Amino acid sequence: MNEGSFNITVVGLGVVGGSYAMALRELNPKGLFGVDVNPDTLRKAENMGIIDRGYTKAEEPLKKSDLVIICIYPGQIRDFIYDNINYFKKGTVITDTAGVKTELIDEINSIIPESVDFIFGHPMAGREKKGLDFASREVFKNANYIITPTERNHAENINLIEELAMKIGFSRTVRISPEKHDEVISYTSQLPHAIAVALINSESFDNSTSSFIGDSFRDFTRIASINEELWTELFFKNNSNLVKQIELFEEKLSIIKNAIVKKDKNILVENFIEAGRRRGAI
Amino acid sequence: MNEGSFNITVVGLGVVGGSYAMALRELNPKGLFGVDVNPDTLRKAENMGIIDRGYTKAEEPLKKSDLVIICIYPGQIRDFIYDNINYFKKGTVITDTAGVKTELIDEINSIIPESVDFIFGHPMAGREKKGLDFASREVFKNANYIITPTERNHAENINLIEELAMKIGFSRTVRISPEKHDEVISYTSQLPHAIAVALINSESFDNSTSSFIGDSFRDFTRIASINEELWTELFFKNNSNLVKQIELFEEKLSIIKNAIVKKDKNILVENFIEAGRRRGAI
Repeated sequence: MNEGSFNITVVGLGVVGGSYAMALRELNPKGLFGVDVNPDTLRKAENMGIIDRGYTKAEEPLKKSDLVIICIYPGQIRDFIYDNINYFKKGTVITDTAGVKTELIDEINSIIPESVDFIFGHPMAGREKKGLDFASREVFKNANYIITPTERNHAENINLIEELAMKIGFSRTVRISPEKHDEVISYTSQLPHAIAVALINSESFDNSTSSFIGDSFRDFTRIASINEELWTELFFKNNSNLVKQIELFEEKLSIIKNAIVKKDKNILVENFIEAGRRRGAI
Repeated sequence: MNEGSFNITVVGLGVVGGSYAMALRELNPKGLFGVDVNPDTLRKAENMGIIDRGYTKAEEPLKKSDLVIICIYPGQIRDFIYDNINYFKKGTVITDTAGVKTELIDEINSIIPESVDFIFGHPMAGREKKGLDFASREVFKNANYIITPTERNHAENINLIEELAMKIGFSRTVRISPEKHDEVISYTSQLPHAIAVALINSESFDNSTSSFIGDSFRDFTRIASINEELWTELFFKNNSNLVKQIELFEEKLSIIKNAIVKKDKNILVENFIEAGRRRGAI
């Protein structure tokens, strides 16, 4: 891969797209363009020097781009592709950053032409805050990057997206099926978000809570500052997996609760030791 | 308060006691002594220069100490006081670091003489790892410190413990009743620990999980590396509060689960917005 000969377009300059632009800038691509609905965001990104030029309409940058990175909400991706279907260059590689895959891939593969290759990706990096102001290339450092290849993808393009991920700071890339991705992610990412929201929304929370918290509560509820539009989409697009994960979690919490009710030391200690062993392994 | 004229004994040089010794060392007390059952730990603490001298029996250091900081497990405190009841100097101030209070205070106040003043305290700072090797005075930085005064306590001694907390790095001290402490702590500290253990002990966890996690799962399960002896004591000594908190949490998680099942966007968005608002306030 030689980014120096690439024109790259980042679609959506929010916290993720902005972070991509910052990270890609370091690779000195031939051209680096941004697309966003908000002209102020585009001017800001230009002034920050993280894109060469910003566009509110995608036609012009797409026509010259070899690589397109789509960083808009999952529910908007299908329409963006559909509306701009004629502007992609032949051979263009497209990738995305959406946190759910199965439904999205079905939507996209039913409309996309053979002449472009959409490599579906999920950078496991984000921020609680939204918008370009919170973008930082640091979020990718040592993070996991997941690719969900489809039968249509060309091996060299999958490799290209993987190499790019490593170059911008990710420490590990993994390839899995879209179905497996959505199953695993409902456990590792969506479930913790649901838990954080439930924890902080407890009746027990009040004005004095902040005087009585340690790092555990602080770390736990960091992700309770949640982008409600994005996460509603993510939860609904993966709802059967997530409901299953919530129920598996409820079962384990119930075991702990019952051990406390019955003061069953063996069960509690056993659960604590197992938890420590598992945490040590990650 | 003038620590320069104080002899101080730290009882239990684990991660919390060790951190206290390190922090107290900076205040240049007249004498700083450590008590621990493990002679190797005492030699190590002496060699690190964080105590002047270590003792496996408490008699000698207690007889000359003006301030005693007890950093052993909550279940051991009553016996430690009972066994050493005759060695405390008249006017000595004792404090502790236990995460549960009501039961402990009843145990202690039934045996302690009028001539010493036990100010019950709870530094909301800790580490997942146990032992002196993981001690660091940094853990106290910007943390909360809770005091649960009893009718027996002298105002000047409560003040002394509060001032000491601020001097060693805590950013806030709060006074509440032991009952209120145990109620609040079951929500802000014990419940997150129970949740972290249940999350990582889910059936969905396997060898590949670490490839699919982001910061949220990592932060969430940090406290799943749990000291099983200590936390079993803490959970059991506060079991009715904790069970209530688990149930309040289960209710909120259930609301979120049902909103996902029914794809009820309004309920989900409402919960996310409320969670973000609450998180912003702490």
